[in-house]
Amino acid sequence: MSSALSVTAGTRRAVDTARLGRLLRDICGPSHVKTDADALAPYGHDETHGLTPIPPDAVVLPGNTREVAEVMRACASLELPVVPRGAGTGRSGGCVPAHGGVVVALTRMAAVNEIDPSDGVAVVEPGVILGAFQQRVEAEGWFYPPDPASLADCTLGGNVAENAGGPRAVKYGVTRDYLLGLEAVLPTGETVRMGRRSQKGVAGYDLAGLMCGSEGTLAILTSLTLRIIPRPPVVQTGVMAFASAQDAARTVTAVLARGIRPRTLEYLDALTLDAVRPLGGYAFPADARAALIIEADGVSEDAVWEELRRAAEVATAHGAQEVVLAQDEAQRRRIWDTRHKLSAATRQLTGHKVSEDVVVPRGRVPEMVARLAATGERHGLRVGAFGHAGDGNLHVQVIFNDPVAQKAQVEACLREVTVEALQLGGSVSGEHGVGLAKRALLELEQGPEVIALQKRIKAAFDPRGILNPGKVFP
Amino acid sequence: MSSALSVTAGTRRAVDTARLGRLLRDICGPSHVKTDADALAPYGHDETHGLTPIPPDAVVLPGNTREVAEVMRACASLELPVVPRGAGTGRSGGCVPAHGGVVVALTRMAAVNEIDPSDGVAVVEPGVILGAFQQRVEAEGWFYPPDPASLADCTLGGNVAENAGGPRAVKYGVTRDYLLGLEAVLPTGETVRMGRRSQKGVAGYDLAGLMCGSEGTLAILTSLTLRIIPRPPVVQTGVMAFASAQDAARTVTAVLARGIRPRTLEYLDALTLDAVRPLGGYAFPADARAALIIEADGVSEDAVWEELRRAAEVATAHGAQEVVLAQDEAQRRRIWDTRHKLSAATRQLTGHKVSEDVVVPRGRVPEMVARLAATGERHGLRVGAFGHAGDGNLHVQVIFNDPVAQKAQVEACLREVTVEALQLGGSVSGEHGVGLAKRALLELEQGPEVIALQKRIKAAFDPRGILNPGKVFP
Repeated sequence: MSSALSVTAGTRRAVDTARLGRLLRDICGPSHVKTDADALAPYGHDETHGLTPIPPDAVVLPGNTREVAEVMRACASLELPVVPRGAGTGRSGGCVPAHGGVVVALTRMAAVNEIDPSDGVAVVEPGVILGAFQQRVEAEGWFYPPDPASLADCTLGGNVAENAGGPRAVKYGVTRDYLLGLEAVLPTGETVRMGRRSQKGVAGYDLAGLMCGSEGTLAILTSLTLRIIPRPPVVQTGVMAFASAQDAARTVTAVLARGIRPRTLEYLDALTLDAVRPLGGYAFPADARAALIIEADGVSEDAVWEELRRAAEVATAHGAQEVVLAQDEAQRRRIWDTRHKLSAATRQLTGHKVSEDVVVPRGRVPEMVARLAATGERHGLRVGAFGHAGDGNLHVQVIFNDPVAQKAQVEACLREVTVEALQLGGSVSGEHGVGLAKRALLELEQGPEVIALQKRIKAAFDPRGILNPGKVFP
Repeated sequence: MSSALSVTAGTRRAVDTARLGRLLRDICGPSHVKTDADALAPYGHDETHGLTPIPPDAVVLPGNTREVAEVMRACASLELPVVPRGAGTGRSGGCVPAHGGVVVALTRMAAVNEIDPSDGVAVVEPGVILGAFQQRVEAEGWFYPPDPASLADCTLGGNVAENAGGPRAVKYGVTRDYLLGLEAVLPTGETVRMGRRSQKGVAGYDLAGLMCGSEGTLAILTSLTLRIIPRPPVVQTGVMAFASAQDAARTVTAVLARGIRPRTLEYLDALTLDAVRPLGGYAFPADARAALIIEADGVSEDAVWEELRRAAEVATAHGAQEVVLAQDEAQRRRIWDTRHKLSAATRQLTGHKVSEDVVVPRGRVPEMVARLAATGERHGLRVGAFGHAGDGNLHVQVIFNDPVAQKAQVEACLREVTVEALQLGGSVSGEHGVGLAKRALLELEQGPEVIALQKRIKAAFDPRGILNPGKVFP
């Protein structure tokens, strides 16, 4: 089946929970192991819409790398699945224990060990919260760009596992572009270092890069060496409003093709605008049917304004109703607060939604937007989208009333959306990952040879198949 | 042994060359197969100093992906090594057929299939010359930043295989940061696609990234989808001269720690300056013992000048003798021409040199520069360095007169240089790769578990071990 709505638990081994609990308590201490059903429940799901929770047999919260390695070895000797987990803000079920076993929650390993402008690196434990980390880095005049919407809660380890992106990726790239090196515990129990602390390096295969987006299936991350860059001193934000989705989508493609490099170029369609208007945040024009949030940054006011002015010129040529530049930090914050509430607000429209995180080559955004509308009509569903249009990455929203009666209808619609993204040269996931929710879709994108190759790589790391089993591959 | 001076050929199978030649001619046509000793000789080496040439049994120049796949399958059935090759400008022996077999030269596959500003991508065959590609991209107002010194000759396929960098990497990153997707022939004969055309994507493992820097050991690249970015309209170049290596090295670290983002920050020491002065290129001050070439770019003249002005301020505070900003394009070209001739000029000093491509965390550049001088003294050899100091990436030059009598002395010195880079948290290679020349050094950097893991990944791609055998791993 094609979507999260149909994901069910995999087979699980019978486990002597009392014995397992003792074993884990011996390693991590009695207060850092959970085996009660109530305590396990929150670890049975992430933030994937519609996924049935699958609780683990135990949760352990190790305090250091040695404990992680001991837990890994203990579980390996019992042939019990091990599922690493950060804050559980993922949207594809990557940290859900599909086959039961032990969830290794890394939230206690939350130290920022170094922020070193001299080397241009930060060294952190995987449980550090992204937003808090960014504040610390920015307080020193430096910058860590990746900014998924969950930044107030998500962990840097989870960001690496899912290769998190966000609005600023259009200029600054994704988590992979900032991971220099790491320490990890392999499924075979060894603690290893991958990558480096230097800005460059080509000694052997790019293992650190391979960890990015591997969704916790290859190793448990225990320390991250991240690249930090100087914080651009000037940032300006604007909102462009349009009478149609096509005008907005064509503006996205035209702005970038013109050589303008905004640091965000976020798209909101009519569905999204309808959803956020009641929140009383930033006031989009009442007759706007689409909008773009554009942000530029740089070292001088003049250069940044010039970039926004050129973008505004393109928007006007593509029929923008109005272009508003944020006059102060308060207005800028109101714009982004509104943006961050989109996903929740869209669900409130009818109580039920599923979202798909598709991506297309960025020149195909207008075509993808047109196809979304047509697909919704064909399936009798309201389909909208918002997201990182500058990267071609749209978070497609399918709204419905009845998750039981409309299940088949919604799933057919979602599958068609994905097929259309692939037809346009895109991918089944721009930034949420495959996890449990999109396993069946991966086959639509990648041939059997490439999937077989990836399974061999998985086996090279995890010959017994005990680390986060059941994920990514069909 | 630690250096290229000691690399010898691996065992090779006895080959019926006449039969092999017929087989390959049937696939690629009679004019695209070489089996004569004279014709094979140039394919027995790259540009690694001191490497003994190892000619292949045959060279084949396929014209398309289908021919590459057929050659791969034919060689696999004969259990004959296959060694992919671009322009042969590598500096670690990555394309040298250590165990004989068939060199697959990709120089005929040199089409630029697409330059698409709308999607922000270019699609090319692997044999396209980097410099020619950059000119075509720039003619359309776009930019492909990686710029190894060999850019007039090297191929984009080779750039991906070695993850090529260059001066501009300090701001724009290396080849890996511009590879979105690719087509490749696996050692098992299948033609597969990895990665994507969209700017983002997290569907499955990052296989395209894994190809970057894999030195032709995992697959033969047949098509590359590269990210292109808008060309910064303004570029300004400056030269800073110093009375000591330490002053220059401390300036590098201080400029970057101050949050300035030059697009190049190249270091030349006294040895290098002595070598280039007779060339009559850019005239460095007669008493300068070190220099930096700094370049800044951006969207406005003012912002770029401001960035250089701030860097000059830092240089002056660190004792710069003079800071000269290029007054026109001719002077700018003279500076870079001089920079591009460094490696050859250094060899001319005495007729013999070996270079090591080490990298350290960039804050450790001053310490590394100090250690180089001390190491040279201890070994009674003249040791210098130039290179991409802004990335901590130094091309260390060891000068000598007699390759036979001084062999042990030179090798001991090189090994010590590498050990010192590692002690400072660096890597055995910043951008030249491991290839044949640095296999033994890899063990100094990476533990046996990580090397074993990489060998398992290699086996996942190449279970018979026939693609570019004998490379990277000890």
